[in-house]
Amino acid sequence: MSDPADLVDRTRAFVREHVLPVDDAHDGDIEAAGGDELRVKLQEQARAAGVFAPHAPVDCGGLGLGMVERSAPFEEAGYSLLGPLATGIAAPDEGNVHLLAHVATDAQRATYLQPLARGEVRSAFAMTEPAPGAGSDPAALLTRATKVDGGWVVNGRKWFITGADGASFFITMARTSGEPGGAGASGSGGATMFLMPASTEGLEVVRHVGTVDRSMIGGHCEVTYTDAFVPDSEVLGGVDEGFRYAQVRLGPARMTHVMRWTGAARRAHEVAVRHVTEREAFGSRLADLGMIQQMIADNEIDLAATRALLRTACEELDAGERASASTSIAKTFAGEALHRVVDRATQMCGGLGVSTELPVARIAREIRPFRIYDGPSEVHRWSIAKRAVRRVEKELG
Amino acid sequence: MSDPADLVDRTRAFVREHVLPVDDAHDGDIEAAGGDELRVKLQEQARAAGVFAPHAPVDCGGLGLGMVERSAPFEEAGYSLLGPLATGIAAPDEGNVHLLAHVATDAQRATYLQPLARGEVRSAFAMTEPAPGAGSDPAALLTRATKVDGGWVVNGRKWFITGADGASFFITMARTSGEPGGAGASGSGGATMFLMPASTEGLEVVRHVGTVDRSMIGGHCEVTYTDAFVPDSEVLGGVDEGFRYAQVRLGPARMTHVMRWTGAARRAHEVAVRHVTEREAFGSRLADLGMIQQMIADNEIDLAATRALLRTACEELDAGERASASTSIAKTFAGEALHRVVDRATQMCGGLGVSTELPVARIAREIRPFRIYDGPSEVHRWSIAKRAVRRVEKELG
Amino acid sequence: MSDPADLVDRTRAFVREHVLPVDDAHDGDIEAAGGDELRVKLQEQARAAGVFAPHAPVDCGGLGLGMVERSAPFEEAGYSLLGPLATGIAAPDEGNVHLLAHVATDAQRATYLQPLARGEVRSAFAMTEPAPGAGSDPAALLTRATKVDGGWVVNGRKWFITGADGASFFITMARTSGEPGGAGASGSGGATMFLMPASTEGLEVVRHVGTVDRSMIGGHCEVTYTDAFVPDSEVLGGVDEGFRYAQVRLGPARMTHVMRWTGAARRAHEVAVRHVTEREAFGSRLADLGMIQQMIADNEIDLAATRALLRTACEELDAGERASASTSIAKTFAGEALHRVVDRATQMCGGLGVSTELPVARIAREIRPFRIYDGPSEVHRWSIAKRAVRRVEKELG
Amino acid sequence: MSDPADLVDRTRAFVREHVLPVDDAHDGDIEAAGGDELRVKLQEQARAAGVFAPHAPVDCGGLGLGMVERSAPFEEAGYSLLGPLATGIAAPDEGNVHLLAHVATDAQRATYLQPLARGEVRSAFAMTEPAPGAGSDPAALLTRATKVDGGWVVNGRKWFITGADGASFFITMARTSGEPGGAGASGSGGATMFLMPASTEGLEVVRHVGTVDRSMIGGHCEVTYTDAFVPDSEVLGGVDEGFRYAQVRLGPARMTHVMRWTGAARRAHEVAVRHVTEREAFGSRLADLGMIQQMIADNEIDLAATRALLRTACEELDAGERASASTSIAKTFAGEALHRVVDRATQMCGGLGVSTELPVARIAREIRPFRIYDGPSEVHRWSIAKRAVRRVEKELG
Repeated sequence: MSDPADLVDRTRAFVREHVLPVDDAHDGDIEAAGGDELRVKLQEQARAAGVFAPHAPVDCGGLGLGMVERSAPFEEAGYSLLGPLATGIAAPDEGNVHLLAHVATDAQRATYLQPLARGEVRSAFAMTEPAPGAGSDPAALLTRATKVDGGWVVNGRKWFITGADGASFFITMARTSGEPGGAGASGSGGATMFLMPASTEGLEVVRHVGTVDRSMIGGHCEVTYTDAFVPDSEVLGGVDEGFRYAQVRLGPARMTHVMRWTGAARRAHEVAVRHVTEREAFGSRLADLGMIQQMIADNEIDLAATRALLRTACEELDAGERASASTSIAKTFAGEALHRVVDRATQMCGGLGVSTELPVARIAREIRPFRIYDGPSEVHRWSIAKRAVRRVEKELG
Repeated sequence: MSDPADLVDRTRAFVREHVLPVDDAHDGDIEAAGGDELRVKLQEQARAAGVFAPHAPVDCGGLGLGMVERSAPFEEAGYSLLGPLATGIAAPDEGNVHLLAHVATDAQRATYLQPLARGEVRSAFAMTEPAPGAGSDPAALLTRATKVDGGWVVNGRKWFITGADGASFFITMARTSGEPGGAGASGSGGATMFLMPASTEGLEVVRHVGTVDRSMIGGHCEVTYTDAFVPDSEVLGGVDEGFRYAQVRLGPARMTHVMRWTGAARRAHEVAVRHVTEREAFGSRLADLGMIQQMIADNEIDLAATRALLRTACEELDAGERASASTSIAKTFAGEALHRVVDRATQMCGGLGVSTELPVARIAREIRPFRIYDGPSEVHRWSIAKRAVRRVEKELG
Repeated sequence: MSDPADLVDRTRAFVREHVLPVDDAHDGDIEAAGGDELRVKLQEQARAAGVFAPHAPVDCGGLGLGMVERSAPFEEAGYSLLGPLATGIAAPDEGNVHLLAHVATDAQRATYLQPLARGEVRSAFAMTEPAPGAGSDPAALLTRATKVDGGWVVNGRKWFITGADGASFFITMARTSGEPGGAGASGSGGATMFLMPASTEGLEVVRHVGTVDRSMIGGHCEVTYTDAFVPDSEVLGGVDEGFRYAQVRLGPARMTHVMRWTGAARRAHEVAVRHVTEREAFGSRLADLGMIQQMIADNEIDLAATRALLRTACEELDAGERASASTSIAKTFAGEALHRVVDRATQMCGGLGVSTELPVARIAREIRPFRIYDGPSEVHRWSIAKRAVRRVEKELG
Repeated sequence: MSDPADLVDRTRAFVREHVLPVDDAHDGDIEAAGGDELRVKLQEQARAAGVFAPHAPVDCGGLGLGMVERSAPFEEAGYSLLGPLATGIAAPDEGNVHLLAHVATDAQRATYLQPLARGEVRSAFAMTEPAPGAGSDPAALLTRATKVDGGWVVNGRKWFITGADGASFFITMARTSGEPGGAGASGSGGATMFLMPASTEGLEVVRHVGTVDRSMIGGHCEVTYTDAFVPDSEVLGGVDEGFRYAQVRLGPARMTHVMRWTGAARRAHEVAVRHVTEREAFGSRLADLGMIQQMIADNEIDLAATRALLRTACEELDAGERASASTSIAKTFAGEALHRVVDRATQMCGGLGVSTELPVARIAREIRPFRIYDGPSEVHRWSIAKRAVRRVEKELG
C-alpha cells in the first residue's frame, strides 16, 4: 500500500472513476451490477490504485489506520454505495477484521483473518435471531452450543445475517451457559463466538430476507444450525466471553458505519445542491430561495455535527477506551442526522428526487435501515439515559 | 350501486378479502401483480361488492358522493396500495372524472367521462414538463398548441405523466397564448386543456421515468407531442382557461390523495402497533415501553389532525368554495404527518420494518413522493405565507 | 346578554378597545395592572358590551353556549392575556361553573354557582399536591377527609392552586376512601369534592408559588388544610365520586384552555407577520424571505390544525360523550403547536421578539406552562398510546 | 493567576460556593442581587480563588488561554447565570478584551484594555441600531462619523447595547464612508470603530430596552450620539476597517457565548435528571419511564454535539483561521440545541419547571435570546447555504 498521505484524494478519485459509474448504471443494486464477480474486479482495481483496506493490520497488507485516521478515507469510499465493497472496507467484513485482529489465535489469523483482510473471501457475523431470540436485546440469545468431545455442537436459527450468501465463514454467537432473558447481557449467562466455515455440515443459508437495501453483497439471510459441529480450535477467544467481544466489535463497527454513511449522505447533498444551483422556478434560481437555503444549511450543520461527534468517539477508541457512551451518542445522532440530510436532498430535487434519474432516492432507500441496524436509536437512547441517571444516583449517594 | 350507508364497512371488507392478499403477495408492485389484467378483475369484484367508484356522477353509475362523504370510504380503499385502483378511485382517473364532470360538453361526457367513470378505460393528465418547463411553477409551461384550421397542433414534451402507459386518452395542458415565466400563473398568458386519444398521431409515450413507487398502474412516463392534431371539438372547456380548470381539478385531487394516503399510513400504524403488542425485549412487552408509546401516540395525533384538517377543507369544497388555503394547508400537513406516521411505524417494527416481511417498508416507499407530487410542501408553504401577508397588507392599507 | 350572532365581532372589538391597552401597558402582569380592582372594572365593561360569560347557564345570566359555539368567542377573548378574565371566562372559574352546573344541588347553585357565573366572586379548584401527592397522577391523592358528625374534617396540603389568593371559595378534592397509589385512579379508592368558603377555619393560603406566568389573578398558591370542617351540605355530588367528577370538569376545561391560548398565539403570530411586513434586511422585505415565509406558513398550519382538532373534540363533548381520546389529542397537539407558533413569532421579530416592546415575549412566557398544566404532554401521550394498544389487544382477542 | 491545570475544578468549586447561592436567591436577576456592588465583590472572590479572567492576555494579569483551552472553564462559569460576570468572562467585556488585544495601540491598551481585563471597569459594544439601521444586516449601518479637525463627530442612535448602563467606555461602530444598504457588508462602504468614554459629551444612555433576560449587568440600552466628538487618537484600528474588525470580534465572541450557555443548559439538565431520579408517578420512578429517558438521552446528545462542534471551530480559531463557516455552524446548532435541552428540562420538572422553585425556568428565560443575538439562526443559515452553493458554482465553473 502506498503513501497514506494522499489516501483521501486517491480514494475519492478511485471511487469517482471506477465505482460510481457502476453504481449509477445499476441503481446501486449489487446483484444486478455483477455480484461477487464485480466485487473481485473492483477490488483488484482498488489494490492497483493503492486504496484497498487501509484499516487492515500491516501484517495483512493494510496500513493499520486507527479510527480517526480512517474516518476521511472511509467517508470517501462511502460516497458510492458500492465504494466500501470495492475498497474492502464494507460491513460485516471490516468489523470482523477488527474483531479477529483483537481476539484470534495465530492459527485463526492465518486461516481466517489473512484471506479476509486481503479480500480473498467474504465473511458473516451471525448474532441476530428471530423473536423471541436475540434482536435489540442480546441477552435473549437462543442459539445454543453444547459441549461435546473435541468441540461444540450448535443448534439454532439466525436472520438478517448480512453477507451470508457467499460468505466463506461465519462468526457465530451461541449460548454456552445460562438462560435467555434477564435485563441486559449481564446476569444472563454466557455466549461464545465460533468460527465456522460455510461448508460446515448442519449450517445452512436457507433464504434471503427481503429488505429495502440492495447494495450489500450476500444479502441479509436466514441461517439455520442443525447439530453443526465446531472443533475446540475454532472457538474465537474464551468460552463465555462472547458478549464482551461483541462489545469490542460493536463500538468501532458503529463508527465505521457512520463514516461510510456520511459519504453517502454527502453525495445526496451535493447532488441536490447542484440541482438547485442549475434550476429556476417562479423567477428565481432554486438555490436563491430561502426555504431551499434552509435545507442546504441544515444539511451542512447535520454533516458537520456528525463528523464532530464521530471524531470525539474515535479519539476515545484510539486511546483504548470502550467509548460506549460516545459511540452510542455518535451512532444515534448520525443515524438520524444523515437520514434528514438525504430526506432534504430528496425534497430539494423535487420529482427527480424520487426517481432513478438521480442517486438520491437510492441513497434514501439504503440509509433508512441504519437507524435500526446496529442498535435502533431507541435502544441507544435507553442506554444513554441510564448512564446519565447512574451519574446522578452516584452523586446523590 | 347499493346502499351508501354501509359503504365504509363494505369497502373495508372488500379490500381485506380481495385486495390485500394480492398487494402483500407482490410487495405492492402493480406490474408484478398483473397490471391491467389484474385491474379489470379486481374492478369487476368491486362492482359486484357494490364498492366501485362511489364518487362518480350518478348518471355514470356512481353514487355522486361529495368530498366529505367520500372521505371515509376512500381511506378504506387506500388501506391497500392497490385498493384505490381496485375500487376505481385511483389518481389520475379520479381527478379526471371530477374535472370532466365539471367542464366537459355532452359529447365529451359520452366519449370520455362515461367509459372512464365506469372503469372501462384509463386516462392521464399531462401537465408536468422537464426543466425549464412547467414543474412546481405552472406558469413555465412550454408545450404549445398552435391554432390551425379546424383545430390545434400540439408540440412539446411532458414527463412524470402518471398512468400514461396504457391510458386510453390524455388531458393535455398546452400554452395557447403568452410566454412562459412570470411570477405565477397570472400574467403569464393562457393555457388550454385538450382531450387526446392515445391513438393521436404525433403523441408518443416514449419511456417510463423510474420512480421509487410501484403501485401506480401505467407508471410515470415521458410523453412527446410532435405536430399532434386536436380537433376543435376536443378542446376541454374554453381556450386559455386551462390554468383556471387546473385549479378546479387540483383542490379536490389534493384532498382525495390525502384520503387514500391516510388509509395507507393507518395500515402501517396498525401493523406496527400489532407488532409491538406481540413482542418483548429487555423484559417488557414493546408496547409497554415509553419510547414506543410515544411513537404510537404521535401517530394517533398525526392521523387525527390529518383527518380534522381534511374535513375542514372538504366542507369548503362541498360548499362550492375554491378552498385554496385550506386544501394547501391540509395537503402540506398530511404529506408530512403521514410520512412521519409511516416512519415511526418502520422504527417500531425494527428490522422487520425495513424488510418485505411486513407491508410497512413498502408503504414508506410509496408515500414518500406525496410530499413532492401535487405541489411540494415548499410551494404550498410559499402560497400559504403569501396569503397571510396579503391579509396584513390589507389591514395596514 | 344580547344577540349571540355577532358575539365574536363584539368580543373582538371589546378586547381591542378595553383590554389590550391595559395588557400592553403592564406587560400582561395582572397584579401590576390592578388586580381584583381592575377585574371588577373590566367585567363591568364586558357586561355593558354584552360579551360577559357567554358560556354560563341561561339561568345565571349567560347564553349557555355549547363547546363548539363558544370556541370562536373564547379565542377572541384569549387574544389578550387579560381578555379571559375581563369577559368572565378565565380558568379556573370557567371550569368550576361547568362543574357546578353539572353537579351542584339547588342550594349549592344559589350559594356558589350564581355569584360565580355572574362574576361577583372568584373561585379555586384545589386538587394538585406536592410530591409524593397528586400531581400528574391523581391516584396519589394524599389530602384526606375524615367523616365526623354532621360533616367532614379535611387535612392536607395543596399547591399550584390557581386563583387561590382572593378566591371566595375552594372546590377541594380529598381522599375519602382507599390509599394513595395504584396504577391510575381506578383501584385506588375514592375521592370527594368539597365546597369550602375561603373563610373556613383551618384553610389557609400560605404563599404564592413563583411561576413564569403573571396574567392569572390570584396566583398559583400553596394552601393548607388543618382540621378544616365541611358540613355534609357542602359535599359536591356524591361521596367517593370525586375522580369521576374531575373527569367531567377536565375534558371541557382542556378544550377551553385551547380556545383561549389559540387566541393568544394568534396575536403573537399576527404581530410577527405585521413586523416582517414592515421591515427590510439584506435588500428584501423580511416577509419576502423564504425562511420567514416558512415560519409564517408553519404558524398558519399549526393554528388551522389546532382549531380543526378542537372542533372534533368539542362536537363529541356537545354530543354528551366523554371524549377522553379526542380531548387528549387536541390538548397535546395544541399545547405543542401553539408553543411553536409563539416561538416562531419570537424568532420573526428578532431582538424585539425577546423585548417588552412587543407582546410576543410575554405571550411566550404565559403559554409555556400549558404543555404541563392540565396534564403534561407525556401523560396524555401515555393514555393515548394505551388506548391504541387496547384496541389491538381486543382485535387479537 | 495560579496553575491552569485545575482551573476547571476550581472554577466549578468557586461557582458552586460563591455564585450559585446568590443566583438562586434572586432568580438570576443581577440588579435585584446587587448590581455592580455585587459584581465587585464576586470578582474579588474570583481573583482570590484564582479563577478570574483566564482568557485575558498575560500582560493584563490573565492566563492568555486560547479558545480550546478556555472552553471548559467558561462552561463551568456559565453553570450559574451570574458566573461569567463573577469570573470576568461575561459578554460584552470578554469580546471587547479580545478585540482590543488584537487591534488597540499601546496607549489604548493602557487606557482601555488593562482596566477592562482586570475588571476595574465595564464596557459596551455599540453596533446594533433600530430599523431601518444595522440589525441582522450590518451593511444598513446609519450612525455616521464625520471627519473634523483633530477627530470625528458621531451622530446616530443605537439600541440593545448590552451593559451600556454603567459602562466606562463604548466601542462605537459608525459609518465613515459609503451609504447604508447593499447586499452584505461588502460594497456598502466603510465603518470605523471609536473608543468613547461614557463621559463623552453628546453620548447618552437614554433608557433600558425591556428584555426577557435579567442576568446581564447594565441591561440592553438605547444610546444616542448627538455631535459626540472623538479625537483621532481614539480611533480603534484603521478608518473604514470596522466591518473587518467586527468579524475579528464576532467569531470568537460567538464561541464564548456557546461555552457559557452550554454551562447554563447543563445545569438545567442536571437539575432535571436529579428531579426525575427522586420522583415517582404511576408506580414508577420518573427516571425509569421511557418518555423521560428519551428526553434525558436527547439532552445528552445535544450537549455532546454542541461541545464537539465548538471544539472544531475553536481549533480553527486557535490556528488563526477566520472560521466563519465553522463558527456559524456551531453557533446556530448550539443556539437551538441548548434551547431544546432547557425546554426538555422544563418538561421533565413538570409544574416545578415553570416555577421559581428550581433554576430551570430562569435559565429558559435567559437562553431564549441566544437564538437571536449574535446573528439569528436564519441569518447564519443564509450564509452557510450561500457558502455551500458557491462551492458548487466553483466546481461547475
